[in-house]
Amino acid sequence: MAKQHLKIFDTTLRDGEQSPGASMTRDEKLRIARQLEKLRVDVIEAGFPAASPGDFESVHAVASAIQESTVCGLARANEKDVRRAGEAIRPARSGRIHTFIATSPIHMEKKLRMRPDEVVEAAVAAVRLAQQYTDDVEFSAEDAVRSDFDFLCRVFDAVIKAGAKTINVPDTVGYSIPEQWGERIRRLIENVPDADKVIWSTHCHNDLGLAVANSLSAVLAGARQVECTINGLGERAGNASLEEIVMAVRTRGDIFVCDTRIDAVQIVPTSRLVSQITGYPVQPNKAVVGANAFAHESGIHQDGVLKHRETYEIMRAEDVGWTTNRLTLGKLSGRSAFKSRLTELGIELAGEEALNAAFARFKELADKKREIFDEDIYALVGDETVTPEHEYYRLAFAQFHSETGEIPRARITLIVDGVEKNAEASGSGPVDAVFKAIENLACSGADLLLYSVNSITTGTDAQGEVTVRLSKDGRIVNGQGADTDIIVASAKAYLNALNKLHANLPRVNPQV
Amino acid sequence: MAKQHLKIFDTTLRDGEQSPGASMTRDEKLRIARQLEKLRVDVIEAGFPAASPGDFESVHAVASAIQESTVCGLARANEKDVRRAGEAIRPARSGRIHTFIATSPIHMEKKLRMRPDEVVEAAVAAVRLAQQYTDDVEFSAEDAVRSDFDFLCRVFDAVIKAGAKTINVPDTVGYSIPEQWGERIRRLIENVPDADKVIWSTHCHNDLGLAVANSLSAVLAGARQVECTINGLGERAGNASLEEIVMAVRTRGDIFVCDTRIDAVQIVPTSRLVSQITGYPVQPNKAVVGANAFAHESGIHQDGVLKHRETYEIMRAEDVGWTTNRLTLGKLSGRSAFKSRLTELGIELAGEEALNAAFARFKELADKKREIFDEDIYALVGDETVTPEHEYYRLAFAQFHSETGEIPRARITLIVDGVEKNAEASGSGPVDAVFKAIENLACSGADLLLYSVNSITTGTDAQGEVTVRLSKDGRIVNGQGADTDIIVASAKAYLNALNKLHANLPRVNPQV
Repeated sequence: MAKQHLKIFDTTLRDGEQSPGASMTRDEKLRIARQLEKLRVDVIEAGFPAASPGDFESVHAVASAIQESTVCGLARANEKDVRRAGEAIRPARSGRIHTFIATSPIHMEKKLRMRPDEVVEAAVAAVRLAQQYTDDVEFSAEDAVRSDFDFLCRVFDAVIKAGAKTINVPDTVGYSIPEQWGERIRRLIENVPDADKVIWSTHCHNDLGLAVANSLSAVLAGARQVECTINGLGERAGNASLEEIVMAVRTRGDIFVCDTRIDAVQIVPTSRLVSQITGYPVQPNKAVVGANAFAHESGIHQDGVLKHRETYEIMRAEDVGWTTNRLTLGKLSGRSAFKSRLTELGIELAGEEALNAAFARFKELADKKREIFDEDIYALVGDETVTPEHEYYRLAFAQFHSETGEIPRARITLIVDGVEKNAEASGSGPVDAVFKAIENLACSGADLLLYSVNSITTGTDAQGEVTVRLSKDGRIVNGQGADTDIIVASAKAYLNALNKLHANLPRVNPQV
Repeated sequence: MAKQHLKIFDTTLRDGEQSPGASMTRDEKLRIARQLEKLRVDVIEAGFPAASPGDFESVHAVASAIQESTVCGLARANEKDVRRAGEAIRPARSGRIHTFIATSPIHMEKKLRMRPDEVVEAAVAAVRLAQQYTDDVEFSAEDAVRSDFDFLCRVFDAVIKAGAKTINVPDTVGYSIPEQWGERIRRLIENVPDADKVIWSTHCHNDLGLAVANSLSAVLAGARQVECTINGLGERAGNASLEEIVMAVRTRGDIFVCDTRIDAVQIVPTSRLVSQITGYPVQPNKAVVGANAFAHESGIHQDGVLKHRETYEIMRAEDVGWTTNRLTLGKLSGRSAFKSRLTELGIELAGEEALNAAFARFKELADKKREIFDEDIYALVGDETVTPEHEYYRLAFAQFHSETGEIPRARITLIVDGVEKNAEASGSGPVDAVFKAIENLACSGADLLLYSVNSITTGTDAQGEVTVRLSKDGRIVNGQGADTDIIVASAKAYLNALNKLHANLPRVNPQV
């Protein structure tokens, strides 16, 4: 029997981006969107166009670039928001507007200051207006958990009659329990007229660690779209993890009558890209995409156990894109070998110039490092994300000295907007000294919120990948830098963050 | 109405320790056990005494130290294992033996090479023998998921008649779905004679991200013990997270008729301690204990929303031990202020000597760092875990120099078994150079599996906490080091790992 289609609505670029410090540049959003398309998600929620001109531009850029997935923009249920969303998704081959309004008594009274009748009217008007831009309109009832059940049915009935094609039921605060959440979805589908004419959707948060379980419970109750993010990224404890939902539904095909169109071997590369760009690490014991998810320590080897499973399909590391043979290139590899490895890894660079720059960095790295792994290549390419036009600050030279019992000192040369400048400073450690030297020139006054380092590969000559999170005037950015020298990587990451602070625009975030 | 008691069986020290590289020394296990006691877990599974002399000793040490929690040792269903477990827990004020045998056709045939009748006999014999050591005997049916339901009922009936007090049903491979898992537990409780005379328990793995949801589903079906770990630590994608289970049950008191005895404000300190000792980071978007779990980015402030919740209790950051005021001590703080802050943080040092050593490090740190946070104090104390008698290698001096375009160089002096030795080396970065200099003296030949750094506090003068994971001859150890100088912290971490390799004994791990 053919499986029913379970749609994957990825909101990494919208709700995921609302994680503190995870805000992305337009180019970063584009890179992730292209990877999501390769992953074959059905819908990419690219942003909230009315939030800021930067958000508008990002959604517009994603809508222009993506061919295979539907591109969606979020809009409150008002004319301005819907029109902005409609304009932002206009270039999309397949575009969706996702409009929402709160339906709980508390929200209607305190936040919207609207009577229930007015809320229904606003919802209907927003859905109707959205249809001037696209047939594909989704409606969400914010705070559905605390909404009166009959009122919720009334709103959904009205927006379905107005033309909404997808009805999303969010667990905004993430406090539901699977049994109860599935039951709520089941009752809605049973009670809303014409429920069979729309796709029911769920959007769960992870405050009690149950976002995935709640989503699956909704699917068992009849939902055919799940809203989720890569690595479960999102505010607080995050959203439901795309990778866990996809693999649970597929692995337990004996229980689920539906399946997604996801190309699962793209899961790990997508996870890694999102982690690298947002600076959000994935813990080793995270299901599916954690470094240990398929590592077996115990005496009785798990594979032996799994070989004899009959009742359901097995999830294997290679099915989700973990590759065993990760050693790829060395000092003697040429430009064409480098280029073909990029293609194999699914990395597309903007053009010949970007390829040349990446190859130059590759040769430089190969001089310092015996073996070049896929992870090194991802890092190299990651370095390319700040393109020269954004590079207000660039590192030209760094020197540092440290000795137990003495104060560490650093000396640096930066190119600041084309002009060479020198500075030196001391600090409590060499990283502190380098950062202070940079600040002596940049005078950004930004606060350092996070500094973390991961070695990209194993071995003592591994590259260090540093993430620096800076905050200034309420704005938060992440900078990344990779180098075999951890202090140089730190300086690069700090400058990358400063460049983003220099370029970005402020924004606001919705709560759905 | 008084809530029923839901027992928390923590297996961080046994199943959690089976995470690759998470193996702990006896002293580390003791520190965690003391913290688990403070957290008020009902049962601490301290290890698998038959696995190795080191495991035996650890369980024995925990059994001797812990007063308030039951201390449990794991044993296969054979005479030797049960006797070793019985001897190991002998000093415990309240001791438990947890014996297990596989009950699925595939395991019985291929692994045990025993007929079903023989399996029942072995289980009964193990439970009877265990009772010579303690009244508190738990039985687990390994691979219960794939076991014949009627046979499972027969085994459980037999071990209950033989005197088992707790019956544990593990989802060894972590592929169950909540609805189905709860249903299985419900049917067992309905069908096994005298089911109401024992405590039913569940033990879930997280391969599909559903360990917590499956555990909760079992609780709704009547289970009154949950086996779980701090941070969800464990093989592959880990075990069910203690913190998520505890807070889900408590927060949703409207649904659950039971509650745990956990002192929730100890959750975050316990999470941090386990993360520090095992070198396993907690991702920021992890529920309850992730750094962002209670961070709100969006425009509409979540607290406002939560203030009006009526249907169920609210989970607040301070309820689980997140403190807002984390700035604690400075340069001028004296020994008594330091000592009283340790007490407030729940840190107990071994004696006056350990306190003096920690205070000396504190003063040294306060010279380099303007503000001392709780996290700095945890790190300081963490440094004390390798006590002098284990310090085969000690860092006396380090110096390094690095400059763009030149090869980084490091010079170090170590005290090796009391003798001062010097070395120098160059490397692809200063960390590489320092590690190579150390190896020039230690010649351990160990492989570096993981190198990671986290800044403990914010600000550029933060301490870096480095974890180094080394592997040699199939053994894996974690070393930690903290310092405001990242290179010095790296050297300390590397030496800490070498000291553990020098001291530890090999071990094997069971699969339950």
